[in-house]
Amino acid sequence: MEDRITKQLAFALELDKEKNVFRQTHLSGHGRNENDAEHAWHMAVMAYLLKEYANEPVDIARVMIMCLIHDVVEIDAGDTYAYDAEALATQKAREDAAKERIFALLPEDQQKEFTALFDEFEANETPEAKFAHSMDNFQPLILNNSNGGGDWKEHGVDAATVYGRQSKTKDGSEFLFEVTDQIIRDNIRKGSLRASE
Amino acid sequence: MEDRITKQLAFALELDKEKNVFRQTHLSGHGRNENDAEHAWHMAVMAYLLKEYANEPVDIARVMIMCLIHDVVEIDAGDTYAYDAEALATQKAREDAAKERIFALLPEDQQKEFTALFDEFEANETPEAKFAHSMDNFQPLILNNSNGGGDWKEHGVDAATVYGRQSKTKDGSEFLFEVTDQIIRDNIRKGSLRASE
Repeated sequence: MEDRITKQLAFALELDKEKNVFRQTHLSGHGRNENDAEHAWHMAVMAYLLKEYANEPVDIARVMIMCLIHDVVEIDAGDTYAYDAEALATQKAREDAAKERIFALLPEDQQKEFTALFDEFEANETPEAKFAHSMDNFQPLILNNSNGGGDWKEHGVDAATVYGRQSKTKDGSEFLFEVTDQIIRDNIRKGSLRASE
Repeated sequence: MEDRITKQLAFALELDKEKNVFRQTHLSGHGRNENDAEHAWHMAVMAYLLKEYANEPVDIARVMIMCLIHDVVEIDAGDTYAYDAEALATQKAREDAAKERIFALLPEDQQKEFTALFDEFEANETPEAKFAHSMDNFQPLILNNSNGGGDWKEHGVDAATVYGRQSKTKDGSEFLFEVTDQIIRDNIRKGSLRASE
């Protein structure tokens, strides 16, 4: 087989490992933990479904591919829980090393392209990256909400912490942040989320 | 909450159930069975990665969203194994009913849009649908190949049956069909796939 397709298939096969990286979020119906591949899939479909709410017009193909690959580094670095301060401190170094190794499986032009897409998501400056970040927050929010806020209870987080994390949603979509705010307030009212002191 | 976003979120939450629909394909490393959400995610990334091999230029956003939603009907209808003749006979009726129910959760304009995308994939006539079908065949092929053809052995299929299924790949990508052919012949040579009588 030609060198180019051999490299592309090695990368495609490597991606398969994302299906074994489990997150803190649980599936609806009080299901099992969700994995990175499922999360990325759900984010990408939701990006397409909710694109009318992006603050600025977006190139939806770029939003979708960013959603689909944004967690690829977790194949090596594992999932870092949004509210785990210790793991967050070493996250960047672990993920940078993973990014180097994994995208180096690709032909050089695609290594550059995929790295650029990954970095664009991380930098969170373009309309596409911002909207993809809204999905990264909003997708687990609706799952957690459907489960009565179980993921928040499990980690004992309070409303201020959740607002801190979810505030990025606003940069991608003012409207979806309003929905987020409503969901958070609803969960506080129901006692599913601890109000901040 | 407004009626429109309420409907969109009901659909987004319904989609979550695809993560519990398991397929016959196994993850690489002789892993567990793969589910529909993971399969769709992998197909969509591979579509982006391999788009240079499409027979005709494709709108990659349309290919990706088709990949992402093409199995949504299996939430109700279940996965129908490609080589299970009995289940294949009732597949269309079961999937049509599911399509009606699930897309009806959406606001009317999006019900039409998502149904049209789903039908476009099924009809397999546009360059985008054909390339998405190539991914639907090629993605499980590379997983199965990485596992020494275990999925073929489990179901006792022979090379002619596999060629029958994989022949659609050619309509989307002559090049990826050549790669498919090489992989199949390689598996026959190694004894992982039974040659046809």
